[in-house]
Amino acid sequence: MNCSIAKSLDQVGDAWTLLIVRECTMGKTRFDEFQHGLGIARNILTNRLNQLVADGILETFPAPDRVNTNGYRLTRKGEELYPVLVALMQWGDRWRTAHGKPLLTLADKRTGQAVQPVDIRSADGALLSYRDIRLLPGPGATDSTLAVIDSRNQRVLGEE
Amino acid sequence: MNCSIAKSLDQVGDAWTLLIVRECTMGKTRFDEFQHGLGIARNILTNRLNQLVADGILETFPAPDRVNTNGYRLTRKGEELYPVLVALMQWGDRWRTAHGKPLLTLADKRTGQAVQPVDIRSADGALLSYRDIRLLPGPGATDSTLAVIDSRNQRVLGEE
Repeated sequence: MNCSIAKSLDQVGDAWTLLIVRECTMGKTRFDEFQHGLGIARNILTNRLNQLVADGILETFPAPDRVNTNGYRLTRKGEELYPVLVALMQWGDRWRTAHGKPLLTLADKRTGQAVQPVDIRSADGALLSYRDIRLLPGPGATDSTLAVIDSRNQRVLGEE
Repeated sequence: MNCSIAKSLDQVGDAWTLLIVRECTMGKTRFDEFQHGLGIARNILTNRLNQLVADGILETFPAPDRVNTNGYRLTRKGEELYPVLVALMQWGDRWRTAHGKPLLTLADKRTGQAVQPVDIRSADGALLSYRDIRLLPGPGATDSTLAVIDSRNQRVLGEE
């Protein structure tokens, strides 16, 4: 846990970065669109876009409607941040919105039905909190991972 | 989308903040435990903890094993950030870990079985990317939300 969350935050632990990724999921592609949508300073936007490309989260492509202008779009790696954005949206809807009224509903374009909430669920479908979770070593676990896992399970699950 | 993601990031758009929340899900409660686990400067940790309490994500409680010492624990609001952390962990496992080998597996403590991935799924269980999503107005939608929704659906879904 330590490692993968921290390593993710190395690349997306900055609010502007995730907001640029959000703009991409809204179909924005151009520097001026990002700037307009976010109200971000040009030098900061330039810096974040360059870093996102360097990190392989965005890639540039020739903008279809402008000569000599690059657009930005999500790579596969970038697209896979969508659950992070939706989890943040859901939390914001619940805890950061006036009267808890969501502005938006995400629907499956095929059916028009709302998507399922982003929850932690067991294989049998039960809704789980972090207190219902036991950490187990993954395929990349090291000795220090094992120590972290034991300590965490003792603390949270009250096990010896 | 604009609103709830941005509002969430107002409170958790800083890497230290989410890492402190992670430490709480690992069963840590005390200032010195956070400091040791994160290697964060004391003044920054003090600042972030105070802000997390002010934002209602953490609450203080008398530490059971220390006189005159407060511990910190997640509120309900804080606990509900767990899907955000797990989504970041999953993305990090996939894109930020050597050879894509996860260090940890999250298992249901009752069954020992791995939890389901944090994905965006339709009501009928299909895995969806952001391109499969149609935005619809939610109960809190305003006129400007409707304009954003229309523009986004046109851009991403190619609809008029």
